[in-house]
Amino acid sequence: MFQSAEIGHSVSKSKYREAVPKLREALLEAQARLYEEKRSPVLILISGEDGAGKRETIHVLYEWMDPRFLSTLAFEDPTDEERERPEMWRYWQSLPPKGQIGIFAGSWYSEPIRRRIKGKISQKDLDARAEQINRFEAMLVNEGALVLKFWIHLSEDAQRQRLEDLQSNPQTAWRVTSWNWKRLKTYDKLQDVAGHLLRLTDSAWAPWIVVEGTDEKYRSLRIGQVVESALSARNAQNVKPAEIAKTKVELPAANLQVQAGPPVTPFLRLVTDGRSVLSAMDLSLRRSDKAYARELADLQGRLSVLARDPRFKKRSLVLAFEGADAAGKGGAIRRISAALDARQFQIVPVAAPTEEERAQPHLWRFWRKLPRQGHITIFDRTWYGRVLVERVEGFCSESDWYRAYGEINDFEHELVEAGAIVVKFWLQISQEEQLKRFHEREQIGFKRFKITQEDWRNREKWDAYQQAICDMVERTSTGEVPWTLVEANDKNYARVKILRTLCDRLDECLG
Amino acid sequence: MFQSAEIGHSVSKSKYREAVPKLREALLEAQARLYEEKRSPVLILISGEDGAGKRETIHVLYEWMDPRFLSTLAFEDPTDEERERPEMWRYWQSLPPKGQIGIFAGSWYSEPIRRRIKGKISQKDLDARAEQINRFEAMLVNEGALVLKFWIHLSEDAQRQRLEDLQSNPQTAWRVTSWNWKRLKTYDKLQDVAGHLLRLTDSAWAPWIVVEGTDEKYRSLRIGQVVESALSARNAQNVKPAEIAKTKVELPAANLQVQAGPPVTPFLRLVTDGRSVLSAMDLSLRRSDKAYARELADLQGRLSVLARDPRFKKRSLVLAFEGADAAGKGGAIRRISAALDARQFQIVPVAAPTEEERAQPHLWRFWRKLPRQGHITIFDRTWYGRVLVERVEGFCSESDWYRAYGEINDFEHELVEAGAIVVKFWLQISQEEQLKRFHEREQIGFKRFKITQEDWRNREKWDAYQQAICDMVERTSTGEVPWTLVEANDKNYARVKILRTLCDRLDECLG
Repeated sequence: MFQSAEIGHSVSKSKYREAVPKLREALLEAQARLYEEKRSPVLILISGEDGAGKRETIHVLYEWMDPRFLSTLAFEDPTDEERERPEMWRYWQSLPPKGQIGIFAGSWYSEPIRRRIKGKISQKDLDARAEQINRFEAMLVNEGALVLKFWIHLSEDAQRQRLEDLQSNPQTAWRVTSWNWKRLKTYDKLQDVAGHLLRLTDSAWAPWIVVEGTDEKYRSLRIGQVVESALSARNAQNVKPAEIAKTKVELPAANLQVQAGPPVTPFLRLVTDGRSVLSAMDLSLRRSDKAYARELADLQGRLSVLARDPRFKKRSLVLAFEGADAAGKGGAIRRISAALDARQFQIVPVAAPTEEERAQPHLWRFWRKLPRQGHITIFDRTWYGRVLVERVEGFCSESDWYRAYGEINDFEHELVEAGAIVVKFWLQISQEEQLKRFHEREQIGFKRFKITQEDWRNREKWDAYQQAICDMVERTSTGEVPWTLVEANDKNYARVKILRTLCDRLDECLG
Repeated sequence: MFQSAEIGHSVSKSKYREAVPKLREALLEAQARLYEEKRSPVLILISGEDGAGKRETIHVLYEWMDPRFLSTLAFEDPTDEERERPEMWRYWQSLPPKGQIGIFAGSWYSEPIRRRIKGKISQKDLDARAEQINRFEAMLVNEGALVLKFWIHLSEDAQRQRLEDLQSNPQTAWRVTSWNWKRLKTYDKLQDVAGHLLRLTDSAWAPWIVVEGTDEKYRSLRIGQVVESALSARNAQNVKPAEIAKTKVELPAANLQVQAGPPVTPFLRLVTDGRSVLSAMDLSLRRSDKAYARELADLQGRLSVLARDPRFKKRSLVLAFEGADAAGKGGAIRRISAALDARQFQIVPVAAPTEEERAQPHLWRFWRKLPRQGHITIFDRTWYGRVLVERVEGFCSESDWYRAYGEINDFEHELVEAGAIVVKFWLQISQEEQLKRFHEREQIGFKRFKITQEDWRNREKWDAYQQAICDMVERTSTGEVPWTLVEANDKNYARVKILRTLCDRLDECLG
């Protein structure tokens, strides 16, 4: 991986002086256009060995570009807000919006490398992490981001020389500490670990660009040129974000494929025997008012105790509610929230994304609402919007919603890994029951806000929705985070089933 | 303050049963309309003595209203993110957007009361805090918020009785700890302190509503009714947010006046002798390229050292840049950022507010960008937009921009109180110089993005802008945070003056 960066690349002073003004103008031009047209978010990762010139490179980028539309993301020890959420949360919070450039001084690569060197994780763990990273970056690129990953390399000799030079100059001696010399001793180990991780994560859509760090002029020019050419290429593309993924920035590679070519989903619409997880549901299931009253009180009491369980203080709960319009999500949620302390939970009604949310990957708006430890977030409609309403209404392309299955599974897996308990419900009602409820709503004052023209329109696509739901359940009901399908024609039955499922899951996860 | 809440208010079971369904429907109706029309943010503060029924009241509000558009804000020990910013930061982060209701279980009143009881602050400190709170709440109301502050009161006897009842029931005994009994001993002190603070902060625009807590039915009904009537009154108003302030919710009072009546600002346009802080500036000031190069290097070195000063680790720096179009803000900022570590600073270019920002008070978008300790935020255009472009272009009413002077002074004062160093620059150029620079920009490729039709239009209002700038300087140049007016016809001169002022201020504040 690093061989080509030990061959003594260098650029003469005169060549540098000649190249920089043109490059700078091209960079500013490309950056201004990117910003004006809010085209893509751009992520530039600056990584590499200590003293290879990471700090200096960032400095040069600020000098050559308009610093007002750059931001540098550095990650120190996690804050308590960060510690209580999945590892990737801090990076999601730092993603630049469309049109802006985020320079990552430290990234999702830093921790795995550090831990592997210290022997805190195994080689297999590292490989699994690489796979996760590939999927994360593929998601970013498919969502329209431009991802440029630089590794600035310095041979061991060059690194030693650099430290000695710094130390001998009184102006810079403060920058060299015993920590630097100690790090130099682990040079080989770093080469092994980083080299391995870089190979596994060198993809066509988010390539690694290894740059020799010894000669400052070469290093700066090389990185500036790559950034400029990537930005200009992006500006020249007259395509939708989803298709941008097909255009590679540089270097071949790939152990995982980002979407390309025509969609392969027609098989989803094949009907072989007409049975489905939905048609197999018994919507006639009912609970009498009397039994309901008793069970509701019992289950709410049980939930209330579970939410105050000391073991829950180190966990969090993410509840996801999906269902057709008027399926009773709101009522079910109210029966849950009634058993909880209002200071402990937050209900997030999911409607159309805001302007800030539209400038980010589709999962971003859910990441920003994740609960801290000991807390609960209840989503009324969820990240499944992309494979339901967005799919059926054609708000995104076929390949967009198809890849969302994997992205969603990854998202939920990260939540579970971080100790969150994730429980998701689909509330199913029949078409007749929905019609009846729509008419009821029109009669009730405060409920008339809940029924709109759109609700009526959605009904017309009933079959398409049923198909989308079946596919969703099939592709995202995992062992860790299964779907619970709820027969919801009878509200009593549905609420009891939801509360019981929730209590059982909490018991199981806390036990 | 509390006498009327010790007279044994109560509501019979039958009256309660009769009242609740109607109240509930009215609440849901009012809430739905508020949400649909994104009319106002609503802040409901639930405070009072321990065991007076705060928790239960919040619970009832959730039961009666749609919990999906409620959020409860509870404030535990500050997180490290919170500790490193002004005290009010966490409350700004928690403000509900327009159309939503935020229930504050704990608020900006909790800390002052707690500290005064413990003797950590003096009576005078408390009074000063009350004044700050009044101004903060007036700002919220003027920005369109509805603020309802409940104090649930329980007499000492009733409180003792309540604890004994809870303790004797095995189901609820866990809720009573030795802490509760200890708190009871400070009852009188709490009455004194809270009573005093409530009196000082009982304003027509954000009244305190004291509710007797002994009878649960009375308490719930009373609070529900007040919320309903306030929401309905707000929905019935067909006025702009700025005017809402004039309508009081209940109770008279006030030691401070929120705007009302016709604007009183015509005096601002009186010209007596034609001299102003701007006309008094000597725009012919220049620095030769040679002197500039030397001074720039010196000052950047000095700034770089100051930013790494260990004493800065507990401070933060907020830099504000304002100036006419093409006055050279970007170039000046670049000379500052070049001396800093990119991981330490963030540049915030201020353009039109986003959708999420428009749903909040005008200062909200600056609060969200405040630096942590040891960090620097550079604002390229600032919170002064309201008294500059918004005033001149008529984007807000005269009373809106006039009150902004006070709000801005409060904002900067809070920053300074929290240890931030705030430095603000106005870059002044002549009309001729601006014209010259506009023409130059049109010639340069990457700069053509910087010059728009709007820039040309703004020029036509030159005099109005000059007037607005003079008023701004006069009203917001405080001892703590003075304006530095920069003669910017010569870029060399301007940059040196800015860097020197900044270094001097840092020296002074860290020394």
